[in-house]
Amino acid sequence: MRIGILTSGGDCPGLNAVIRAIVLKGIAIYGHDFVGFRDGWRGVVDGDIVPLGRKDIQGIAKQGGTILGTSRTNPFEGPNGGVENISKTLERHGIDAIVAIGGEGTLAAAKRLTDAGLQIVGVPKTVDNDLGATDYTFGFDTAVAIATEAMDRLRTTGESHSRCMVAEVMGRHVGWIALHSGMAAGAHAILIPEQKTSMEQIASWVRAAYDRGRAPLVVVAEGFVPDHEDNAHTERGLDAFGRPRLGGIGERLAPLIEEMTGIETRATTLGHIQRGGTPTAYDRVLSTRLGLAAIDAVIEERWGRMVALKGTDIVHVSFDEALGELKTVPQARYDEAAIMFG
Amino acid sequence: MRIGILTSGGDCPGLNAVIRAIVLKGIAIYGHDFVGFRDGWRGVVDGDIVPLGRKDIQGIAKQGGTILGTSRTNPFEGPNGGVENISKTLERHGIDAIVAIGGEGTLAAAKRLTDAGLQIVGVPKTVDNDLGATDYTFGFDTAVAIATEAMDRLRTTGESHSRCMVAEVMGRHVGWIALHSGMAAGAHAILIPEQKTSMEQIASWVRAAYDRGRAPLVVVAEGFVPDHEDNAHTERGLDAFGRPRLGGIGERLAPLIEEMTGIETRATTLGHIQRGGTPTAYDRVLSTRLGLAAIDAVIEERWGRMVALKGTDIVHVSFDEALGELKTVPQARYDEAAIMFG
Amino acid sequence: MRIGILTSGGDCPGLNAVIRAIVLKGIAIYGHDFVGFRDGWRGVVDGDIVPLGRKDIQGIAKQGGTILGTSRTNPFEGPNGGVENISKTLERHGIDAIVAIGGEGTLAAAKRLTDAGLQIVGVPKTVDNDLGATDYTFGFDTAVAIATEAMDRLRTTGESHSRCMVAEVMGRHVGWIALHSGMAAGAHAILIPEQKTSMEQIASWVRAAYDRGRAPLVVVAEGFVPDHEDNAHTERGLDAFGRPRLGGIGERLAPLIEEMTGIETRATTLGHIQRGGTPTAYDRVLSTRLGLAAIDAVIEERWGRMVALKGTDIVHVSFDEALGELKTVPQARYDEAAIMFG
Amino acid sequence: MRIGILTSGGDCPGLNAVIRAIVLKGIAIYGHDFVGFRDGWRGVVDGDIVPLGRKDIQGIAKQGGTILGTSRTNPFEGPNGGVENISKTLERHGIDAIVAIGGEGTLAAAKRLTDAGLQIVGVPKTVDNDLGATDYTFGFDTAVAIATEAMDRLRTTGESHSRCMVAEVMGRHVGWIALHSGMAAGAHAILIPEQKTSMEQIASWVRAAYDRGRAPLVVVAEGFVPDHEDNAHTERGLDAFGRPRLGGIGERLAPLIEEMTGIETRATTLGHIQRGGTPTAYDRVLSTRLGLAAIDAVIEERWGRMVALKGTDIVHVSFDEALGELKTVPQARYDEAAIMFG
Repeated sequence: MRIGILTSGGDCPGLNAVIRAIVLKGIAIYGHDFVGFRDGWRGVVDGDIVPLGRKDIQGIAKQGGTILGTSRTNPFEGPNGGVENISKTLERHGIDAIVAIGGEGTLAAAKRLTDAGLQIVGVPKTVDNDLGATDYTFGFDTAVAIATEAMDRLRTTGESHSRCMVAEVMGRHVGWIALHSGMAAGAHAILIPEQKTSMEQIASWVRAAYDRGRAPLVVVAEGFVPDHEDNAHTERGLDAFGRPRLGGIGERLAPLIEEMTGIETRATTLGHIQRGGTPTAYDRVLSTRLGLAAIDAVIEERWGRMVALKGTDIVHVSFDEALGELKTVPQARYDEAAIMFG
Repeated sequence: MRIGILTSGGDCPGLNAVIRAIVLKGIAIYGHDFVGFRDGWRGVVDGDIVPLGRKDIQGIAKQGGTILGTSRTNPFEGPNGGVENISKTLERHGIDAIVAIGGEGTLAAAKRLTDAGLQIVGVPKTVDNDLGATDYTFGFDTAVAIATEAMDRLRTTGESHSRCMVAEVMGRHVGWIALHSGMAAGAHAILIPEQKTSMEQIASWVRAAYDRGRAPLVVVAEGFVPDHEDNAHTERGLDAFGRPRLGGIGERLAPLIEEMTGIETRATTLGHIQRGGTPTAYDRVLSTRLGLAAIDAVIEERWGRMVALKGTDIVHVSFDEALGELKTVPQARYDEAAIMFG
Repeated sequence: MRIGILTSGGDCPGLNAVIRAIVLKGIAIYGHDFVGFRDGWRGVVDGDIVPLGRKDIQGIAKQGGTILGTSRTNPFEGPNGGVENISKTLERHGIDAIVAIGGEGTLAAAKRLTDAGLQIVGVPKTVDNDLGATDYTFGFDTAVAIATEAMDRLRTTGESHSRCMVAEVMGRHVGWIALHSGMAAGAHAILIPEQKTSMEQIASWVRAAYDRGRAPLVVVAEGFVPDHEDNAHTERGLDAFGRPRLGGIGERLAPLIEEMTGIETRATTLGHIQRGGTPTAYDRVLSTRLGLAAIDAVIEERWGRMVALKGTDIVHVSFDEALGELKTVPQARYDEAAIMFG
Repeated sequence: MRIGILTSGGDCPGLNAVIRAIVLKGIAIYGHDFVGFRDGWRGVVDGDIVPLGRKDIQGIAKQGGTILGTSRTNPFEGPNGGVENISKTLERHGIDAIVAIGGEGTLAAAKRLTDAGLQIVGVPKTVDNDLGATDYTFGFDTAVAIATEAMDRLRTTGESHSRCMVAEVMGRHVGWIALHSGMAAGAHAILIPEQKTSMEQIASWVRAAYDRGRAPLVVVAEGFVPDHEDNAHTERGLDAFGRPRLGGIGERLAPLIEEMTGIETRATTLGHIQRGGTPTAYDRVLSTRLGLAAIDAVIEERWGRMVALKGTDIVHVSFDEALGELKTVPQARYDEAAIMFG
């Protein structure tokens, strides 16, 4: 059997450990042959493949990123895209099955291709932790670890200058990274897309911390929208005067907090460093286990299914289940954290 | 209400985050009063308590160890020990309830005291991850992270010298730290107390890795017993000639591996560094959540119960459940990892 | 003898280790008495002092920031400022001498006060490494380490997406942090204030790296000015059309590079995380040694002198020497690094 | 010109950055051709060489160890060893010059070969920092950083249990790693080969720290010999009763300290983790600069010379100078640190 592997969407620490586990077990136990598609679906569409032997995956589990490259190519677009073209391309290269490692978009594409008869197994990838069908995915723990370490650093600066520090973390639609890193770092306010929070509330938390002699730490997910920016007159991306909003939410919040509280406030946007580099041990274990389960799923011909973490077990769920709603931060988890605000 | 907190047994990253969460929520939401017992049960028996106010717990979540100190004192021994004395001591200090943070021994003592009428809630602590009633406990992730990072370092040395490196990690009775760190670091053999493994098997894994051009990495839990040391004639702690065995298992294994394979082999015992220092973000979140749930359990008067992690939820389990059998590494988890040995 | 310590200007990892060394040696060897001025010169001017005993400095060497707080207060301004007021304030608190830990501004103020008769010894502090009279100062190594680690992370993201990554680091007037972190991370271009570099040159380096299959890494000091922004018609802070320039240099460069090379380019501004948190071992040793030498200098009444690192020795230099020109990156050091660009 | 590179002796973080810098500059600026000798002098003697092109050195600067392998082979022994054989071997492979990266033994061999007419330039390598002709060498900073981080962890364990922690670090003949890591970690005693220290003195430091409420931290270099072990009747390696001494100095000291002070004491031997893994940014810059200077030295035909760090400059010194006495910790540096003991 010849199996192709692809990594698609934004990169994420742990991708290489998944690839390594699939190939190692696939060769050692099942005697399969492996290739990698370069740059996600683009490699599938273009038939751009590289051999994946035991040598190619040596020592990669602790490397960030993906040795296969990634892209946001839509496999149904372009002259070589679509089910029929892809089927022919796979046939031409003698590829029997695909392991697709990616997020919601990738899995949706994989579902469509599986429904059309292709043999695909999925591995969930979301640094944001927003997929409902799995407790956690690899990359999230690393992102939280990096963000937490950065906040530990910001706090000493804040305390030396009696400043409020605003840290903007990843999370366009969900606030999991903000919630976990903020809780780990002892934030005085955590602002996430799922929760409306007024500027008055934010200022009040900041003031309360400051009054207790602390340097307030505000953690904000990039997708958070403060109430004053979110009204009928201003679409996203425009400010109240219709001008394009510049800078991230962290940089927009800082001057507002400073104005409302009188406390000097500085913003830091952690950005791309949150998704790169060596994965944590937790993420390496999780991604290795997911990879091992994925190759088993191929052997068991569980097409249209994705491996997932439930408690301490690796299970299978259908693409349908996996493609449900975004897993947002539940109210109870936010309330739990909010007790320590201010 | 006045609540006393104690940390007992070996120290563990995350203890301070538990203490902080209990006190923060207890003061902010419930208006309680807190004290800490110094050095675990010793402080309970001796009435050695310190006040725990908001100032005392500032910034401690990221500190390793426990600000309260710890010991292995048995609360039923000594002139001031036993249920009656302890009851009187608590009464004298006006302490209504205890949150006991500790492992199996601590929880067993807590159960006995609760059965006798004391009001105690438990928080599980085991760096070894050997408590059955909870998916994970804090400290384990940090230990695995430290061990994994150390192994990443050992590998580059092994590769430069074409050596086999043996890394001894914690785990007297269970092999969880070895399993996870070994999987994260890409070990060629993981040796744990739960699994009989012959020297021949070990040598064969080492040789296989070496023959593929790798520097073999052997991870061994301190409680692993190789078959030749485990027979009717030799009790634990004595060698085959009845002499006391010296050095840890790692240092005993290295010369045997070298002799059997002809490959230069070096051992490193990670020791105490695995349980100290800044907890990982994962452990800070887990210990904070357990602490918050513990103070809720006090309010709800869930005496004789322990907080625990199940999947992504914090739940309560009775001390009875918590005190079942040791949670050993199941065969399936070992087999899953063993696929990548050799 | 009663000695006051102050930390002034931007915070910097290692400040606490300096304070600890001064106080430890001052108490243990010389039997002196110590106080800290809160928030730099502000504490001197306002007579806002805190006692500094052995307990106060326990365990602080590895904490980032400064336990004394810092500010940019000018000691010659305000109703209580100026030589005469300060002299009276010191007298009122019985303070015989000051150890001033700070950068160019602080040392200039210290010189003026010393010239007027006050007894002051200086300790250099510049995270940017721009003081000429010392080989290095504490904080610089930590900043370089943090920036390098961040770039290691950015590279794996860049490589997965075949992107050019731009990392903006500290360095308003000098490029030392960019030079060292860029060299450590294997940057394909390092842009510093000391070196004119055309956009064509930058694009050419980026293209060369990309053509060799690398994800180009561009490291830019915050004070770098690309040639097209630097002409007679545009003052700093305004773009070519006289509009305020928004965002840092990294964010302004990224779209230009993308436009000129056709390579997707992303910017990350490391910001405040570079100056906070636990100092590296190197910085802890350097700051401890500077602190120990500073208290010796007080005993030896070396008023108007600053401790400094020359090779492996700690020496003394006069404030005059210390206040010479900014230590910029010499051409030879830049050329040395530039060999590996592209 | 065809240049061969070798790395010899114990591995050391930074070796790969040296190799990379030599090859990058040698190819880009001088158009040279490079090969690597496998496993140090063994590759020279056996003519075991690998090509070193630009691809081979991509991304290796941050990898620990050496991609060329290393050994302790003596180039003057064996059937293919000796000046004449080596000359012929080099000629056969068309190798004009050698860059030898190694410690005292390597440089001594290089000198002998150079004296006999071979064209060799040296790069100093000593994780222990014991070469006199250079201020520092790469690997030392990384070793100190790893040891310091480990001690930070040990301290929290020590404090939780009120224990004395003994940390054994590298340093068979000199105490530089112990001195720097001990100073960085705030050790209460630092024991090095260069300094006689009685058990009474050690116990007194430990007691003093304990009495102030601290958990004593004792840092000991592996080559330290306590006075009771060092007498006319006991040769090294035997105890006072003529039996072989077991365990390292850390493990031998711990029970003695516990016996003399009554304070529970635990030892940890850091071992091989100190010399492996990713080099610090400091070491990456230093090794890159040394590599760049080494290839310049080849071009300038500075045979028999070694590159070295003096202050902030890279200079050249003759092998004769480099092979002087061991650079031990001077009394002044020890006294400086000892002020903070106890």
